[in-house]
Amino acid sequence: MAGPEWESLEQCLEKHLPPADLREVKRILYGKETRKLELPGRAFEAASKGDFELQGYAFEAAEEQLRAPRTVRVGLVQNRTPLPADAPVAKQVTALHRRIEAIVEVAAVCGVNVICFQEAWTMPFAFCTRERLPWTEFAESAEDGPTTRFCQKLAKKHDVVVVSPILERDREHGDALWNTAVVISNSGAVLGKTRKNHIPRVGDFNESTYYMEGNLGHPVFQTQFGRIAVNICYGRHHPLNWLMYSINGAEIIFNPSATIGALSECLWPVEARNAAIANHCFTCAINRVGEELFPNEFTSGDGKKAHRDFGYFYGSSYVAAPDGSRTPGLSRNRDGLLVAELDLNLCRQVNDIWNFKERLQEAPSRAEGRVSSSRSWCAREEPLGQMMPRQQTLINSPLV
Amino acid sequence: MAGPEWESLEQCLEKHLPPADLREVKRILYGKETRKLELPGRAFEAASKGDFELQGYAFEAAEEQLRAPRTVRVGLVQNRTPLPADAPVAKQVTALHRRIEAIVEVAAVCGVNVICFQEAWTMPFAFCTRERLPWTEFAESAEDGPTTRFCQKLAKKHDVVVVSPILERDREHGDALWNTAVVISNSGAVLGKTRKNHIPRVGDFNESTYYMEGNLGHPVFQTQFGRIAVNICYGRHHPLNWLMYSINGAEIIFNPSATIGALSECLWPVEARNAAIANHCFTCAINRVGEELFPNEFTSGDGKKAHRDFGYFYGSSYVAAPDGSRTPGLSRNRDGLLVAELDLNLCRQVNDIWNFKERLQEAPSRAEGRVSSSRSWCAREEPLGQMMPRQQTLINSPLV
Repeated sequence: MAGPEWESLEQCLEKHLPPADLREVKRILYGKETRKLELPGRAFEAASKGDFELQGYAFEAAEEQLRAPRTVRVGLVQNRTPLPADAPVAKQVTALHRRIEAIVEVAAVCGVNVICFQEAWTMPFAFCTRERLPWTEFAESAEDGPTTRFCQKLAKKHDVVVVSPILERDREHGDALWNTAVVISNSGAVLGKTRKNHIPRVGDFNESTYYMEGNLGHPVFQTQFGRIAVNICYGRHHPLNWLMYSINGAEIIFNPSATIGALSECLWPVEARNAAIANHCFTCAINRVGEELFPNEFTSGDGKKAHRDFGYFYGSSYVAAPDGSRTPGLSRNRDGLLVAELDLNLCRQVNDIWNFKERLQEAPSRAEGRVSSSRSWCAREEPLGQMMPRQQTLINSPLV
Repeated sequence: MAGPEWESLEQCLEKHLPPADLREVKRILYGKETRKLELPGRAFEAASKGDFELQGYAFEAAEEQLRAPRTVRVGLVQNRTPLPADAPVAKQVTALHRRIEAIVEVAAVCGVNVICFQEAWTMPFAFCTRERLPWTEFAESAEDGPTTRFCQKLAKKHDVVVVSPILERDREHGDALWNTAVVISNSGAVLGKTRKNHIPRVGDFNESTYYMEGNLGHPVFQTQFGRIAVNICYGRHHPLNWLMYSINGAEIIFNPSATIGALSECLWPVEARNAAIANHCFTCAINRVGEELFPNEFTSGDGKKAHRDFGYFYGSSYVAAPDGSRTPGLSRNRDGLLVAELDLNLCRQVNDIWNFKERLQEAPSRAEGRVSSSRSWCAREEPLGQMMPRQQTLINSPLV
């Protein structure tokens, strides 16, 4: 295994394949080519100065007679933790706030409307240690913790919807911890939150030591720029999980993650992309980069000696579209911002062609009595004009 | 688009990438490397003489203390129709029988235990025409039609389980047509049949003009070599469909298909592979090759002029494993036989590590009253020793 120094699949293919072959390889691997997005020069300059990668692509849809294009620019942020894991908690959080602030500045210059950070972005991914302190000190209130307040400011300043995945401390309910994403409207208001539905118990991912499966179902958030959902990390392995967000109306599903080379790299290009295809929606897969070293050694249940690191997070964040196309991935080892312009009209257009969910969409009316939870999940600030009524939850959330 | 003359993704990468880069590209694209299977020289000679490709790979599992390896060799056959579509029906069928007979001979030399042919293998894929005659004349009884009898002979002669996807004529029920796979035991007995659950209404795939969604649920067949299911063609786009075969106990799910370059080539490497990952089982994706020219022109609902061909079927058949690894694909344009040795112990081993379906497996006992069909589907000849009881069907089949 080449390890984290190997930059990216795309860079390797670009370097070695003759143009005609490269075109064909890309067509088979990535589908219809995504147009490169023209981004302002000063954005590239700022990214270069800030030492992070910037890439931009556009997914296009056919012109329609009765609907204008519904273009939205999403921003996916991947980054390493700037300070070592044994630095004081408050300093680590502040350093991450500063790092993200700089990247969001560039995203704003690129016209990003909705930005999503990586899973548990305010902390090192310390769940491998099974230690409590200091790691649980990174937990914050989703509603009014310092990170949420920080994101509210960003949202208002840049007119951008912010998806902020954090370790949540629910003070109202026994100080429980959750793996949560807070969704903040471009107005600055907290639209709501969603919790990770599937908790790994694999290798160094000892997360159920800290928090359990989410209890908020599969909420979808109506924003000014489209209906979004957040399928946190391990949820990407579960087709039913993606399906439920989609049935509840999501047009874009973010998948903020933290996953490592040895465990999942060959699954990474497959799962979020399959979800975009199967559900006729856009999916945004985000993974952190870098290696994180912890003060005390731990074992991984794999017969190997105790160690202090997790392996490397391989980045490679990408956006997949309902027509099976996808962007190249960001680097495997550098901080980065991926800007993708999506025409959300593509979702219905592909749905009208393939119609993979047709009979599921009919289901709620046919399934009365079998529906175990009829909560209709769509958080929003204002009454919706063109909003479709939400489908009922077909399968109760503990199963999905 | 390069078209059908472009041999394969793998061949292109092998040709142009330096060894170290090739290894890394393969690791990211295909996961853990599959070992090349040593097949007899005379098999390669016969394949070369018969002008079809032969490739062999092995998927390995860890050694266990209480279970011996459960290795099974599967054979995937992709082929073009040897005679033009306007040749007499009986001659076309006979030519296909001869072609397949020759390939199965080689499969037997390679020690194949379970072989699967492509969708509707005894005919050109004529559903684009929307004409009845002569195409409906290709339909046969699943239980005792000439093709089933032919396969029974092959099965007995070579001690091989045969999965034979045909256009079925159900004489017992109003002469209805179905898109069916007949499963024939290595003893020569018909184990049962399964019907395509999702019928495309896309482009030239006008199949509901001929037959509708299957009414047999998601049967799993216990064979001497493991529990198998058949998810025919369009069913691969539906994660719930794969899931139901898996929940009903399938360890290997075959996906005999007929699909073309312009429509689905970038989805092909994603969907069956995602199903293997999500369901901790092996999946075998099979697509035909070649171009088929029909006597009368037809339109495709895409604004283009009437034409007489379908585009090219791009082959690229492959096997995917529960650990996310996969074999290279067969050629995009040649007839071929892919032999894969699977250690079925890998399914439970990966399940024990990742456990993606854990809570679904608990579901039947928790879901009593919500289960709409409790038919337990597993066709078999003899009482089972180590067979687990089948799970109930969680979701009624019309929805899935």
